[in-house]
Amino acid sequence: MTNPMQDKKRPFRSHRPKHFLLETDDDGRVATITLNRPEKKNPLTFESYEELTDLFRALGRADDVRVVVLTGAENNFSSGGDVFDIIEPLTRMSMPDLLDFTRMTGDLVRQMRACPQPIIAAVDGICAGAGAILAMAADHRIATPEAKTAFLFTRVGLAGADMGACGILPRIIGQGRAAELLFTGRVMTAAEGHAWGFYNALHDRAALLGAAQAFARNLADGPWFAHAMTKKMLDQEWAMGIDQLIESEAQAQAICMATGDFRRAFEAFAAKTKPVFEGR
Amino acid sequence: MTNPMQDKKRPFRSHRPKHFLLETDDDGRVATITLNRPEKKNPLTFESYEELTDLFRALGRADDVRVVVLTGAENNFSSGGDVFDIIEPLTRMSMPDLLDFTRMTGDLVRQMRACPQPIIAAVDGICAGAGAILAMAADHRIATPEAKTAFLFTRVGLAGADMGACGILPRIIGQGRAAELLFTGRVMTAAEGHAWGFYNALHDRAALLGAAQAFARNLADGPWFAHAMTKKMLDQEWAMGIDQLIESEAQAQAICMATGDFRRAFEAFAAKTKPVFEGR
Amino acid sequence: MTNPMQDKKRPFRSHRPKHFLLETDDDGRVATITLNRPEKKNPLTFESYEELTDLFRALGRADDVRVVVLTGAENNFSSGGDVFDIIEPLTRMSMPDLLDFTRMTGDLVRQMRACPQPIIAAVDGICAGAGAILAMAADHRIATPEAKTAFLFTRVGLAGADMGACGILPRIIGQGRAAELLFTGRVMTAAEGHAWGFYNALHDRAALLGAAQAFARNLADGPWFAHAMTKKMLDQEWAMGIDQLIESEAQAQAICMATGDFRRAFEAFAAKTKPVFEGR
Repeated sequence: MTNPMQDKKRPFRSHRPKHFLLETDDDGRVATITLNRPEKKNPLTFESYEELTDLFRALGRADDVRVVVLTGAENNFSSGGDVFDIIEPLTRMSMPDLLDFTRMTGDLVRQMRACPQPIIAAVDGICAGAGAILAMAADHRIATPEAKTAFLFTRVGLAGADMGACGILPRIIGQGRAAELLFTGRVMTAAEGHAWGFYNALHDRAALLGAAQAFARNLADGPWFAHAMTKKMLDQEWAMGIDQLIESEAQAQAICMATGDFRRAFEAFAAKTKPVFEGR
Repeated sequence: MTNPMQDKKRPFRSHRPKHFLLETDDDGRVATITLNRPEKKNPLTFESYEELTDLFRALGRADDVRVVVLTGAENNFSSGGDVFDIIEPLTRMSMPDLLDFTRMTGDLVRQMRACPQPIIAAVDGICAGAGAILAMAADHRIATPEAKTAFLFTRVGLAGADMGACGILPRIIGQGRAAELLFTGRVMTAAEGHAWGFYNALHDRAALLGAAQAFARNLADGPWFAHAMTKKMLDQEWAMGIDQLIESEAQAQAICMATGDFRRAFEAFAAKTKPVFEGR
Repeated sequence: MTNPMQDKKRPFRSHRPKHFLLETDDDGRVATITLNRPEKKNPLTFESYEELTDLFRALGRADDVRVVVLTGAENNFSSGGDVFDIIEPLTRMSMPDLLDFTRMTGDLVRQMRACPQPIIAAVDGICAGAGAILAMAADHRIATPEAKTAFLFTRVGLAGADMGACGILPRIIGQGRAAELLFTGRVMTAAEGHAWGFYNALHDRAALLGAAQAFARNLADGPWFAHAMTKKMLDQEWAMGIDQLIESEAQAQAICMATGDFRRAFEAFAAKTKPVFEGR
């Protein structure tokens, strides 16, 4: 029996990104994307911005991956946009090209939010500029005590309004703390990040990636159709009034109740077994 | 002198709910609603959902009750929707019936937010699923160290988008922490709930209900017309821009300044006595 | 070469406010406004409300001041609207006059948010009513351990909906904590304010003003055009959806990239010197 909607899907694990490592679990459900230019602390460049955006966009059509782990190679997450590779050319660009650039970087955040898979950021060492934005745009964030997170756009003469930071960061850590980080560009320590709700948990360096992948695995074996709806609604209700968001959730949850996964969960509960979800 | 608007009011304390205990103070100002099916940890059923919604709706016409305390019998708050009573029938329903159901549960939250009385949730033990939503939808939350609060919709294959949780919970505890609770369904401990601002205070089991009722009494003896406006505006401004919310408050506060309670408060201050509010 | 937009600007430091002290740094970049009626703990009156609003409005045309420090004389920040000077007359006013008043006080918050300069509140002692609102409306808040912050409108029979508090305070400290402060009017201790993200840092009394001015100086020597954009966007995105706020930041940051300050920051980085910003 053909299913035209499923026919559009394709395996994500067959991607061979140039700027990143991509590994998947045996069954393809958990993909780990590693920012991989460790000698420069995993910066982003014009090409790698675009490739990373394309990767997250492709996740919308994936028939395998359910959860994504995003991390950086060799004890750093990402140093953000490289000063010579990115900032120098920007200082010479015309306005249309500048806007093309800022829209391209914003599109990376948009694709991270639009893909149905929850994204788990595993952060060690430097997490700066666009790197801090990548962490912010994830759904779940864990870090090592050595993580140094800085929204340092102000240090290159720019506004904190980069890739959504002025709108998103305040919802995670509060308006007052976010303003300080965005005005000053100062490092948020791992302890601050944990106390303020930016990081969900801290782990030692040796345990970080394993913890991220175990968390991801747990979600991947859960009701991933419902997880995708949770992710969608967290964003969808961002600027809705209370009456409107209640109606939106009534519709969203009714959709989830019409899936077989809801029945499977009930049957497993009744039979005292572990449910096996199918995502439909 | 007849007053047609007051003629529409009726005493709340005359209600005799079937699924809940309802007690009021001698003067009727503080009502305590107790979820009361302790042998099953106070779950909600199709009928009790509807009755609880009707109770909160009736509060909009009450001429006695000023503040509501919501609690659960025998050391548990509520286990939420009963798996066999609620979930099993849902797995067999058509989409229109499912949507009727999710709208009915959402309406409970809507009525809790729409009634003018501040709602104080006093939470002990299990506070799960729809139970956690009831706590979330209250205006003030206190708990015992034994409180276990879980938005566990994901455990039955559903989204965290239930009764407003994806929109409301992030505003209370932050977007990152809310996402974790909604994706995983894990227990938020009482200590976490307090540190994160979900619970306003923790009290020992023996002191919980007394603390809730004392807090309620204090509000009930205060300017309750103004309290109702505070509650209304906290919701009304949920998704307004800053200029708009400032104008809305200018109007709301001008209304409060036109009440006798404002004058009464000033006169009491000038006379160094305690103001006696009349709610008009 | 004439520049009509610059010709509209005028020095802020030439202001001689009647109700406040105004001091500026030698180069005029940091202005310190001190609420100055210490024998009554620096209350606001009808005239001083208007003068303070005018001061913040004038900052929009300033060609000198880049950052503002707002503080109170002699170990108190502000006791808010004076009961006899302000509240007594209000109890006798008609509705149009009441609305004029609440719009006037709301306009003070609006001008604090509209001026391009970040505002640093340095809070000691009493910070109550409209005083607490002034702190809330600032961009950065530091306090002494002795600071007592209370949104005590309910104590005079009014709603917590005053000058934007029901909309703004929840975004800083969370919806549940804000509701408690607004319903009860109770003091938020300095320790609570710090733990909850209302105060960015605590300092001893002797160090408070110096810390505020050092923080201000650091921002004033930074890219102040970009800082003004950060401030603008933090407010502008208050009630935007995620896709919309990402596009807004793409535009805002492209504007900043077209300034000489962005190039200056890059050139200083490349030359390993400290950038000298010009705000254009």
